[in-house]
Amino acid sequence: MAVYTEVPDDALRDFVSAYDIGDVTSCKGIAEGVENSNYLLRTTEDDYILTLYEKRVRREDLPFFLGLMDHLSGKNFPAPVPIHGKDGVALRELCGKPAAICSFLDGMWPRTITADHCRQLGEAAARLHLAAADMRLTRLNALGPAGWAELAAATESRADEVQTSLAGLIREELAFLNAAWPDNLPTGIIHADMFPDNVFFNDDRLSGVIDFYFACNDALAYEIAVCLNAWCFDESAAYRKECGKALIDGYNSIRPLSTVETDALPILCRGAALRFLLTRLYDVLNHPPGAFVKPKDPMDYVARLSFHQGVISPDQYSRSAV
Amino acid sequence: MAVYTEVPDDALRDFVSAYDIGDVTSCKGIAEGVENSNYLLRTTEDDYILTLYEKRVRREDLPFFLGLMDHLSGKNFPAPVPIHGKDGVALRELCGKPAAICSFLDGMWPRTITADHCRQLGEAAARLHLAAADMRLTRLNALGPAGWAELAAATESRADEVQTSLAGLIREELAFLNAAWPDNLPTGIIHADMFPDNVFFNDDRLSGVIDFYFACNDALAYEIAVCLNAWCFDESAAYRKECGKALIDGYNSIRPLSTVETDALPILCRGAALRFLLTRLYDVLNHPPGAFVKPKDPMDYVARLSFHQGVISPDQYSRSAV
Repeated sequence: MAVYTEVPDDALRDFVSAYDIGDVTSCKGIAEGVENSNYLLRTTEDDYILTLYEKRVRREDLPFFLGLMDHLSGKNFPAPVPIHGKDGVALRELCGKPAAICSFLDGMWPRTITADHCRQLGEAAARLHLAAADMRLTRLNALGPAGWAELAAATESRADEVQTSLAGLIREELAFLNAAWPDNLPTGIIHADMFPDNVFFNDDRLSGVIDFYFACNDALAYEIAVCLNAWCFDESAAYRKECGKALIDGYNSIRPLSTVETDALPILCRGAALRFLLTRLYDVLNHPPGAFVKPKDPMDYVARLSFHQGVISPDQYSRSAV
Repeated sequence: MAVYTEVPDDALRDFVSAYDIGDVTSCKGIAEGVENSNYLLRTTEDDYILTLYEKRVRREDLPFFLGLMDHLSGKNFPAPVPIHGKDGVALRELCGKPAAICSFLDGMWPRTITADHCRQLGEAAARLHLAAADMRLTRLNALGPAGWAELAAATESRADEVQTSLAGLIREELAFLNAAWPDNLPTGIIHADMFPDNVFFNDDRLSGVIDFYFACNDALAYEIAVCLNAWCFDESAAYRKECGKALIDGYNSIRPLSTVETDALPILCRGAALRFLLTRLYDVLNHPPGAFVKPKDPMDYVARLSFHQGVISPDQYSRSAV
């Protein structure tokens, strides 16, 4: 997170007294989550995660995010469960900011990705899509093609400070994607940010998915495209086909992708690569001094984009050369 | 901490298997501690704090720090208890860095300081001094007068960037303190950094003292001087006599200060103010971009120093005007 909100202990005690979760015994800021302030909250009853929503999250989106987590946990999907106050309300206010308490999910995010992680990730993504299918609230993807155009405009004048010709590369890719972006794919609620640090494993079994603050309605297969970018490249940005195959196979085992979805993967992957390239570029160019989290390198996604631009057939994501 | 060490999950599991504390279920970096990387480590048995010692802590000092925590917890002083591995060793290595696991202390540090907090703080400081009196290991105070001179030299050329004439103010104060610094006070092991964020309270009862990584042998009354600076000024740097009185009374109730110690308080307070002024000044001038923790304002300690310079009698710290 950019900046931590200091929560005074008396304000915290007052806040927690609105819940039926015992008395606070400890509250420590944790170094996770880029958009919000997160705290490990211990009470006499259990451990929880307290989240204060900082300004990058739109207040009007919060009922969707918390409603989604409620919905998913009701379907036994391993998402954090929003804790409701004695009055039934989950979204409250603390230190002048929207705040919520969720259950604590055990597990650690994998620092060394294996194909087995990717298979379980694919299964979890499909389960998430099925579990969320009857959710009533909706949210547009603010980081879809229209959002990319905004970010491209906001970074254009300084993109070349990061790499020569980067602004031109972005402009051309955006034009291509605007023309080619599919609108005939099955849609639904997707997580849209299932990066390794948002997926926990316990004893190598997927134990939880966190951070639903980019969740939105979009093409379901776009989730796979985000995951392929986030999980299936090594440190030198080389594609790891065994990971990609495991991811797609895992997804297919729960919710089989249709032909139109599979065929769209290369272009969806280009879009996902551009999306993370643009947000990282924006963050690098607008990084506040003294911020908590070191901005991530946008060039990782230039390399991924370049890989996807060379993909002719979706088979290249999962099949050995024929 | 300046930068977090990323601990791979397999390395962590290997590390924890050297202990008899169950299996890891979660490990999250926590936003506490300026010098080290701290993690909340959950296992199937309990919660712990895992600390990786980053480069600002000298490796050769670690046996002293861990030995002190062992010693204090053996005397029922509420310090973190270093957990020893199955082989009896507490100081180990993880990710190429010295590392240790300690017990988790409940409680929160007080954001709003009351005189009652200060009274309990004084009692705890005195208890710490008595409990550590028979500790065999010793450590010089690296941030005593000789250390101040080094910091003054390292900041002199740029100090005036922070405030006009600051370098001159520091130079004069250092000359004064070098001439007047007492060498006839009772000494022993002190914490030397008992700031509010290192002292936990649970239900308004002092429940723990953490972060012994500045502990050293020095004048016992210097601890009071550090605490007076850290706890007994309001946000506009005005002295809060009710807090100072409670602190001194609390200390005296457990280990009565001798006359020579009480008389030395004004000069000890000047030294303590200069010490934190200098380390903060150094950090502001050498703040790495993207660092985790925002540097603290050295000017807070210029104001405190100025207050102490005007103190004629130690009574001014605790007695109403007569």
